[in-house]
Amino acid sequence: MNQPAEPLAQAPDWIAVDWGTSHLRATAMGAGGPLANACNGDGMGGLTRQQFEPALLALIGPWLTGAAITPVIACGMVGSRQGWAEAKYRAVPCAPVDAAALTRVPTIDRRITVHIAPGLLQTAPADVMRGEETQIAGALALDPGFDGVICLPGTHSKWAHVSAGEVVSFQTFLTGELFSLLSKQSVLRHSIAAEGLDEGAFNAALSDALSRPEKLGARLFSLRAEGLIANLSPIAARSRLSGLLIGMELAAAKPYWLGQPVTLIGAPELCRHYAHALAQQGVTASVLSAVDCTLAGLSKLKGAL
Amino acid sequence: MNQPAEPLAQAPDWIAVDWGTSHLRATAMGAGGPLANACNGDGMGGLTRQQFEPALLALIGPWLTGAAITPVIACGMVGSRQGWAEAKYRAVPCAPVDAAALTRVPTIDRRITVHIAPGLLQTAPADVMRGEETQIAGALALDPGFDGVICLPGTHSKWAHVSAGEVVSFQTFLTGELFSLLSKQSVLRHSIAAEGLDEGAFNAALSDALSRPEKLGARLFSLRAEGLIANLSPIAARSRLSGLLIGMELAAAKPYWLGQPVTLIGAPELCRHYAHALAQQGVTASVLSAVDCTLAGLSKLKGAL
Repeated sequence: MNQPAEPLAQAPDWIAVDWGTSHLRATAMGAGGPLANACNGDGMGGLTRQQFEPALLALIGPWLTGAAITPVIACGMVGSRQGWAEAKYRAVPCAPVDAAALTRVPTIDRRITVHIAPGLLQTAPADVMRGEETQIAGALALDPGFDGVICLPGTHSKWAHVSAGEVVSFQTFLTGELFSLLSKQSVLRHSIAAEGLDEGAFNAALSDALSRPEKLGARLFSLRAEGLIANLSPIAARSRLSGLLIGMELAAAKPYWLGQPVTLIGAPELCRHYAHALAQQGVTASVLSAVDCTLAGLSKLKGAL
Repeated sequence: MNQPAEPLAQAPDWIAVDWGTSHLRATAMGAGGPLANACNGDGMGGLTRQQFEPALLALIGPWLTGAAITPVIACGMVGSRQGWAEAKYRAVPCAPVDAAALTRVPTIDRRITVHIAPGLLQTAPADVMRGEETQIAGALALDPGFDGVICLPGTHSKWAHVSAGEVVSFQTFLTGELFSLLSKQSVLRHSIAAEGLDEGAFNAALSDALSRPEKLGARLFSLRAEGLIANLSPIAARSRLSGLLIGMELAAAKPYWLGQPVTLIGAPELCRHYAHALAQQGVTASVLSAVDCTLAGLSKLKGAL
């Protein structure tokens, strides 16, 4: 979804950038908050090191005036080893972000300065995140006293235990990527609708995966078999696949959510599925917008720069 | 792997055909057994209904003489709804094959007659197989008194309980397809070698998956994270992925193999991995060649035609 930048009446104080594998999103920030948004598909996955500065300027150019130097603060995969410049992981336990650990990237264009936020790593069990740490910082900025668990559902879902303003531990699940591969590229693609939710099928599969997680491999093929011989509808099949994979994730993440306050950060529909799944387990989760959290996290970094 | 048919000194009595989604394999059969083999990539997945007869003739043409009518007996996805002609599933419990249930397909070329073997279905839990039933029949022909469990590892692994010459029940696992998607198309592809086995890593992952199957989603991402921050070798990562997925399958298939004689039918290297995994659980499995079993199963059908 492309949204070009329009020239602004007022020059931005700074620019917040969320730069992932497949997207580049920028927000022009004024004293009173966001002035304008822009985004395109120039994610880090498609860029060589020399292409990052031109890609950024192509998106935010209309916001830059010749007069002032505009700080840019970015988070996400742009800071990975294959990104613009490597922003080395910080090890948990630690605060989710730290302005002193930003990586300054030299630019040819003198109208901007660029800083990239590093991700977090955990030594044992080995795990990494990039981008989510800024959303967690944002969630803490929006709800300063929060102590509990933050879940960020997505391609690579993250569960983080947050206490006293620090990320204590976290764990990543391949849930979203498995859903995408299975529903679009496996033999199941013939049986699965592109969208739609059958709540009964979702709930049954969720509960099945939570109580018999080892059955996953067999339950997956049954979506195909029931489509062939028992008229399982493509929407029910999609809902069961989603319920099975989220159920597997909840089964493994139980030490995180059991008896804890849970905050979900992510795309609204996905968060609804997770909130619904957690509610089935007796956990009431609150939901925050990923966009709001990213902006709040980057603002926290800007304030401390 | 293409292997064209060479003209034969002696006309074959009949031709055995294994016609799957991605391959077409034919064996010219004489009174004393196989005379010659031929194969190519004309699997049913790439053919429209009208293309099956020409594809078959293109492969086996050199074996056909004008003088006699040569029976062709085929098994596999060629009998699916998207195949040459639908050979309707037979419901278990039943003998794996039955000559009376073969589907006769009309041909334009008068030098051949074509029969297709139907697959098997199980109503609850819903499951289907096509092609494996012929291998199971072949295994029973090679070892007539066998009573126990037959496992056919592969893209869609099958476990079948066989008793008194019948398939009593069976279950399919998506193990091979998951391995292929994850190792070639997911974020893990960056961390996984194209081949090689680290036995220690395989065993540890296998045992981990058997005892904590719900951890799969998290264990998967750890292959990536350990590659990034803990120097996990690509061969160890491949071995762990294989161990995790086979371990998940064994955990779910435990009611099949526990305390039962197990026969493995499949590709030699894959069967070695499964035999090794089963040995870790105290089960000694015997191994049969998939090619031998298919041929023995089709021969049994020919003998009863």
